[in-house]
Amino acid sequence: MSIRLAEQSYGKSSVRLTKVTRHPDRHELKELSIDISLEGAFDASYHTGDNTKVVATDTMKNTVYALAASHPLIDNESFALTLAEHFVSRNPQVSAATVHAEEPMWRRIVTPSGWHPHAYIAAGPERRTCQVRKTRDDVSVKAGITGLSVLKTTDSAFRDFVRDEYTTLPDVDDRIFATTVNAVWTYKPTVTGDWNGHHGLICRTMIDVFAEHKSLAVQQTLYAMGEAALATCSAINEIHIALPNQHRIPVNMEPLGLVNRNEIFVTTSEPFGLITATLRREGI
Amino acid sequence: MSIRLAEQSYGKSSVRLTKVTRHPDRHELKELSIDISLEGAFDASYHTGDNTKVVATDTMKNTVYALAASHPLIDNESFALTLAEHFVSRNPQVSAATVHAEEPMWRRIVTPSGWHPHAYIAAGPERRTCQVRKTRDDVSVKAGITGLSVLKTTDSAFRDFVRDEYTTLPDVDDRIFATTVNAVWTYKPTVTGDWNGHHGLICRTMIDVFAEHKSLAVQQTLYAMGEAALATCSAINEIHIALPNQHRIPVNMEPLGLVNRNEIFVTTSEPFGLITATLRREGI
Amino acid sequence: MSIRLAEQSYGKSSVRLTKVTRHPDRHELKELSIDISLEGAFDASYHTGDNTKVVATDTMKNTVYALAASHPLIDNESFALTLAEHFVSRNPQVSAATVHAEEPMWRRIVTPSGWHPHAYIAAGPERRTCQVRKTRDDVSVKAGITGLSVLKTTDSAFRDFVRDEYTTLPDVDDRIFATTVNAVWTYKPTVTGDWNGHHGLICRTMIDVFAEHKSLAVQQTLYAMGEAALATCSAINEIHIALPNQHRIPVNMEPLGLVNRNEIFVTTSEPFGLITATLRREGI
Amino acid sequence: MSIRLAEQSYGKSSVRLTKVTRHPDRHELKELSIDISLEGAFDASYHTGDNTKVVATDTMKNTVYALAASHPLIDNESFALTLAEHFVSRNPQVSAATVHAEEPMWRRIVTPSGWHPHAYIAAGPERRTCQVRKTRDDVSVKAGITGLSVLKTTDSAFRDFVRDEYTTLPDVDDRIFATTVNAVWTYKPTVTGDWNGHHGLICRTMIDVFAEHKSLAVQQTLYAMGEAALATCSAINEIHIALPNQHRIPVNMEPLGLVNRNEIFVTTSEPFGLITATLRREGI
Repeated sequence: MSIRLAEQSYGKSSVRLTKVTRHPDRHELKELSIDISLEGAFDASYHTGDNTKVVATDTMKNTVYALAASHPLIDNESFALTLAEHFVSRNPQVSAATVHAEEPMWRRIVTPSGWHPHAYIAAGPERRTCQVRKTRDDVSVKAGITGLSVLKTTDSAFRDFVRDEYTTLPDVDDRIFATTVNAVWTYKPTVTGDWNGHHGLICRTMIDVFAEHKSLAVQQTLYAMGEAALATCSAINEIHIALPNQHRIPVNMEPLGLVNRNEIFVTTSEPFGLITATLRREGI
Repeated sequence: MSIRLAEQSYGKSSVRLTKVTRHPDRHELKELSIDISLEGAFDASYHTGDNTKVVATDTMKNTVYALAASHPLIDNESFALTLAEHFVSRNPQVSAATVHAEEPMWRRIVTPSGWHPHAYIAAGPERRTCQVRKTRDDVSVKAGITGLSVLKTTDSAFRDFVRDEYTTLPDVDDRIFATTVNAVWTYKPTVTGDWNGHHGLICRTMIDVFAEHKSLAVQQTLYAMGEAALATCSAINEIHIALPNQHRIPVNMEPLGLVNRNEIFVTTSEPFGLITATLRREGI
Repeated sequence: MSIRLAEQSYGKSSVRLTKVTRHPDRHELKELSIDISLEGAFDASYHTGDNTKVVATDTMKNTVYALAASHPLIDNESFALTLAEHFVSRNPQVSAATVHAEEPMWRRIVTPSGWHPHAYIAAGPERRTCQVRKTRDDVSVKAGITGLSVLKTTDSAFRDFVRDEYTTLPDVDDRIFATTVNAVWTYKPTVTGDWNGHHGLICRTMIDVFAEHKSLAVQQTLYAMGEAALATCSAINEIHIALPNQHRIPVNMEPLGLVNRNEIFVTTSEPFGLITATLRREGI
Repeated sequence: MSIRLAEQSYGKSSVRLTKVTRHPDRHELKELSIDISLEGAFDASYHTGDNTKVVATDTMKNTVYALAASHPLIDNESFALTLAEHFVSRNPQVSAATVHAEEPMWRRIVTPSGWHPHAYIAAGPERRTCQVRKTRDDVSVKAGITGLSVLKTTDSAFRDFVRDEYTTLPDVDDRIFATTVNAVWTYKPTVTGDWNGHHGLICRTMIDVFAEHKSLAVQQTLYAMGEAALATCSAINEIHIALPNQHRIPVNMEPLGLVNRNEIFVTTSEPFGLITATLRREGI
């Protein structure tokens, strides 16, 4: 019998950075959690504990802080590109570097005097993500959003599905549709700038479609959201969306001597439906 | 030796409710997680398993949904009052009922056509809380906010503190101040309405003070926030505030051959400082 | 109008310590998360930001590590006592110090050669706790357990409770009883040693009673557990126990054309019952 | 421009099941959380909201409970196989069904009278996992463990790694090695029974190797664990292991006037190293 090291990678996860850029009239705040992963000629470390080709994960952490000092950090994507480029260009034994960045949402506090120059409040539970993968020959930039919770109280139906001996769900024409948008899109290789503009446009488009869509299935709304994102933002070629169906279950009030006029629901965390799809621009 | 049942209470926790109120032009959404706890003559259940005076916690859950159907649910406080009143007035063996409600924050989605009539987005990680305690003779209403994260990048110092052989922290004149506001205030017994107005006023006041304060200590900012809340909102007599000091630690960049101009920080979750105080209106 | 600082305290939370004691034949491992809180003459910090009487929370953190070096750390209670004593005796402005310690459970790995001298595995989700509060004149030592999940598949009933128009729960003679024990007990002031022995005895006693009890109510089992702890361990005077009732709901299988012979249940996290009581030795 | 639905799947997640099997002398307890996902001809649901080929996720939930009633549930793998087979064989539009099961660890309580026949205690934070994927032509069975925390206080070094201008980590010959084992292995297609035996053997082997290994790198220990699992259990062909390096950082006690003799450490949650590899039996 013989055993082979078929795949390996290693890195540092959850490197948490806060950067403050101090302009005369206002400060800019950027907070990121960064994961770095390297692939390459590290087999000796696995086989014999020979670490001579291993970049310490502690050094990766230091590198995040060192490069953050000189990088403007206007957007996450260009910083992730800088980090990935650093590890690949400095280390011939590295065949690929993957950098994932996740950003909690802060917005400026608005006081009676207007936007505050240096005070912030958490803006929502969602997080902006990006992922850069750089090999010797290639680079890909993905971005996304995770944890973006939305809910509509009507314009959602689900009917005419398969019925078998274990089906108890009735057809329903008017239900609550609650979900948490998790989406990742892939930029065209030629895209280089305005990562923030693209990101904002895609998120706003998906949220608008969610709000306006007359939904016959979570699947249909997901597709409409992805289609609109691709149609609106020519910088991306592909989008993957995962929507949990976070059920609000109508309370059966008959045993309580009451009528539930589609008003009173149990909020549930589990079980939940999970609908996913990847939409791609044709001819690529 | 003899053993005594010194205190007891029981109830149902995390009863999660979603209510939709369907107006012709728009829907109203209310989401709450409710905890109910009863005190009273339940000793027999503890001593012998005689449950004849025990209101089942399952019945408490049903009662939340039943009473939510007829209650307008414009605010959380009046609903908590209704629930507490229900359990005390119906059950002579109940000496006190405590109802705690926690509300996740939803706001209407704004599309190009304006505020959407029935689609919502999660507004922030914070939760609005209230707690009503009703006895045979008395009732108290408390409300609060939890998980409200704020951060300022300057106007925060900490210096001239006690130094001993285990002190390594230098005096600092310009640091990041990041915290998560957890506050609970007590309404005057005479207050009966506009719970939403009071709540909004207190939260806005605390956030404004946090943003504008020239902080010499987390303690000082906490006091200023509480003082302003009491000064602005005459409906409350007392406020308790707890502020974790969520440290952003300046990265020592000298070993990396760089200078950190108060720009690059490690975001930390632990350990954290925890500063608390209760402020009270005099002469009560 | 005048506003008063009615109460205040501050400290450092989640100071996480790992200590290894290296004996010739084996190592001892201790892992703790420690919270420290001080009360005293700190009003100037709240009122004017004058910190001259404030022990920095960063110094508290350093003190934990410094004192852990010379303390044997055989048990958590004596270390918490040492820490509390340190802050009170060194700082005349401190009127009280509270130290809370929480310990994750590690046990030695057993290999084919027996107990391993220096390798450990996480032993359970529960955490051992203790809390020491020291004032100028007094000291109290409490200890406890949190997150200890237990479940029995029979010997649990709940019947003959109050029925009203919102009651739908049927009487049940044979249900699953799943809970997570959270308990805190108070040692007699005269107790000074063998904290580990007392702790182990109390936990084992409560677990045995849970297993053997013919339960007519969660309340009754809770009381039996507390009574046995007080009866078995003369070192404690009081015990507070909180037991969530983590419902396993029988699946209604009739609509599926099947019979549920009390075998198939939905595991739920919420809502949950919550039963609490404090038992005290008489005549104290 | 044209947009294509490149991939899609949907299902139900976190279906939580408790099953009690009541033998005359003892009860058996099984608790599982199950995720089901289907691939197939569901495009019409995405494109037009036509759900005529969609098995409702609510039906999937019911099916879990229905099939659990007749299945012995001795092991998780055969139940996952039964579920996957059910959805594929009943629904010609389904091209593949994936069933993931996760099991929290319960063990019987030991009282002075011995193993208790029907009372259990949570055995550890880890969870046993399995994943079955069934297509029209094929089936694969994977199993694993997640959240298995282990720690050794010596026999771990890390030295002679790459040094550059951002490297500050010193070579270290004796450090704490703390990790949480996450592993997934793939059974040979011909394996059909004794899933529990294989699972126990693989876990015990990995834990023993972790305890005994003289580690020169997390990578080396990971490889040794995977190699031993493949060598010991001929039922598997491949194993993927991910080991976070959960750092215990030696406290610098010099500024405190003390010497740290490799005894006092800060326990950290982040950042953490993350080392992964897949080992495969040759010639497959």
